[in-house]
Amino acid sequence: MTSTDLYPVSRLAAVQEATAKAGIDALLLTPGPDLRYVSGYEAKPLERLTCLVVPASGDAYMLVPRLELPAAQASPAARLGLEFVAWDETDDPYAIAAARLGKVAKVGLADRMWAMASLRFRAALPGAEQVLAGSVLRELRMRKSPAEVAALREAGQAIDSVHRQVPEFLRAGRTEREVARDIAEAILASGHAAADFVIVASGPNGASPHHDVSDRVIQAGEPVVIDIGGHLPNGYCSDSTRTYSVGEPPAEFTAYYEVLHRAQVASCEAVRPGVSCESVDAAARDVIAEAGYGDHFIHRTGHGIGIEGHEDPYIVAGNGEPLEPGFAFSIEPGIYLAGRHGARIEDIVVCTEDGVERLNTTTRELVIV
Amino acid sequence: MTSTDLYPVSRLAAVQEATAKAGIDALLLTPGPDLRYVSGYEAKPLERLTCLVVPASGDAYMLVPRLELPAAQASPAARLGLEFVAWDETDDPYAIAAARLGKVAKVGLADRMWAMASLRFRAALPGAEQVLAGSVLRELRMRKSPAEVAALREAGQAIDSVHRQVPEFLRAGRTEREVARDIAEAILASGHAAADFVIVASGPNGASPHHDVSDRVIQAGEPVVIDIGGHLPNGYCSDSTRTYSVGEPPAEFTAYYEVLHRAQVASCEAVRPGVSCESVDAAARDVIAEAGYGDHFIHRTGHGIGIEGHEDPYIVAGNGEPLEPGFAFSIEPGIYLAGRHGARIEDIVVCTEDGVERLNTTTRELVIV
Repeated sequence: MTSTDLYPVSRLAAVQEATAKAGIDALLLTPGPDLRYVSGYEAKPLERLTCLVVPASGDAYMLVPRLELPAAQASPAARLGLEFVAWDETDDPYAIAAARLGKVAKVGLADRMWAMASLRFRAALPGAEQVLAGSVLRELRMRKSPAEVAALREAGQAIDSVHRQVPEFLRAGRTEREVARDIAEAILASGHAAADFVIVASGPNGASPHHDVSDRVIQAGEPVVIDIGGHLPNGYCSDSTRTYSVGEPPAEFTAYYEVLHRAQVASCEAVRPGVSCESVDAAARDVIAEAGYGDHFIHRTGHGIGIEGHEDPYIVAGNGEPLEPGFAFSIEPGIYLAGRHGARIEDIVVCTEDGVERLNTTTRELVIV
Repeated sequence: MTSTDLYPVSRLAAVQEATAKAGIDALLLTPGPDLRYVSGYEAKPLERLTCLVVPASGDAYMLVPRLELPAAQASPAARLGLEFVAWDETDDPYAIAAARLGKVAKVGLADRMWAMASLRFRAALPGAEQVLAGSVLRELRMRKSPAEVAALREAGQAIDSVHRQVPEFLRAGRTEREVARDIAEAILASGHAAADFVIVASGPNGASPHHDVSDRVIQAGEPVVIDIGGHLPNGYCSDSTRTYSVGEPPAEFTAYYEVLHRAQVASCEAVRPGVSCESVDAAARDVIAEAGYGDHFIHRTGHGIGIEGHEDPYIVAGNGEPLEPGFAFSIEPGIYLAGRHGARIEDIVVCTEDGVERLNTTTRELVIV
């Protein structure tokens, strides 16, 4: 997958058109996923301002600290034929941006722009209303191109290869941290540029959905929730959860694991164009509630994924947005018994023309190691 | 170093006092270094709002997504005796914060607060002026406690141990990326929680101060700039640059390396309480300019360091702020010959009661491997 496919030069014009349609004078894109999506440039988030200015009409340009200029020029952003406006250590880049922008009524800030930049832009452009660039970009970013789906598929296969190695790492007597260290190495070895998170939640820790890792020693007979992901060098992310058991788990666990498995399948099977995000959530939630575990499924069913690990669309009650082909997101119901144990099963799926493609394909049956 | 030493419970009261003195009604601290500094909590930056609300008077409290509640309760923030206000997936946490805050005229946002949060706070608190929390916290964060200096010293020793291994990794015929991979592993093995950056800039790439790594094959006779750092599990950062040569370097390189070495020493020797940041910059710059390389030193001399890799104070022309005991920062002059090669020498130093302590102690002589 080349950056030409994933970050096509034609995207800039599409973004400008959408910016104009939204009545926004310019997008101000500091380092992060919005900048990368539009330009392909994986700029470091630093206190020195790097900012791609995308006016609704006219030429886009990029403000860069002088010492980042070679990096910017060597990045995929150079394909866009942009002007790079280098600023020196004692310049005020916000004043430079304001002078070039002139009178603007509304600007769109990168969703992850730091306050240290957004407040400087507010001072430099006192008349301009600030809105999120995401209000424009989310519509584009949610609809993955075939190249983007292929990149997510590749990421999914890479993280699946790590889950297949988990039985080698996981055993009673090891700490969560030891197991996580092995998993992190395997994530890198599988082709990811970085391991973004490694949750190893054993026994009672499994009842906390966002438990990270600890020095807790894993005991025989304990379920272990393993939720892992990273991103490929091209920026696209992986994210998959499987629940394991170190030896035979408690009977009450086996009972609700079966319910969870059915819920996850039901939710995946609900995915097709036109179906609302919240109904995909409800498909999982209803199965779990009917089995009497409704109070133990304490989070939304999923989140979008692309060059961010969490992005639109969110699969949550209240989100009536209809799915479209190319939407990519997680389906990850969980059941958590506080103080005892928990389970979660997570796949990344893509809405296709007529249904769904799962990008994670390791077994969803409980794996006993 | 325990979190009790590094993130003392007494800090919250000091922050509240400084907040009141600055005429700010409350600090709103989302995940990042400001939140960690005040509470010790290394919260994940996510789209779901986690926010420590520090009113100028009255009790601080932390808004947390329900599923992050166990992590927050298990974090050092729990020592503060805070109320944790958990919000559910379909709640609006900004509205909850606004209702609790009531009428406020001025709020301080974490310097790295994402626009997706700052604009939501603006809408939820329409009457409140937004300023940076850094305007309050920088005064505290710049003055490192003895425990913080000890943590930075430990980080410095860890990164020094990696530089001592570089001669094992660096040789002609390997790519920058291969060398960087070995260095990244050594950074982890040395006790860092993560390798935050690994710059391996060989030959002409050394002339770009923020070159990252590439697949360029390192050639015999080439200088290589290696700028590396990470952070310890306790949050404190390392950052050190040394320049190596793979075999005998060109004579013109040797000539300016000697100048650079003198400049770096002169800058370090200028450090003592009361001296301005810009005069420490000038001490290096003058040596380089006098030798005729002034146009080739294209960046500031240094940046503060602590739980952020780059923070106040900045060692740059125009910053007349006087140094105080406990200020910790880099001294990293460089000389760059575009298209040919470059060199940089970087140590972290701490201003002491009567001078300076260098936290990096590997040789600053050119190491020929």
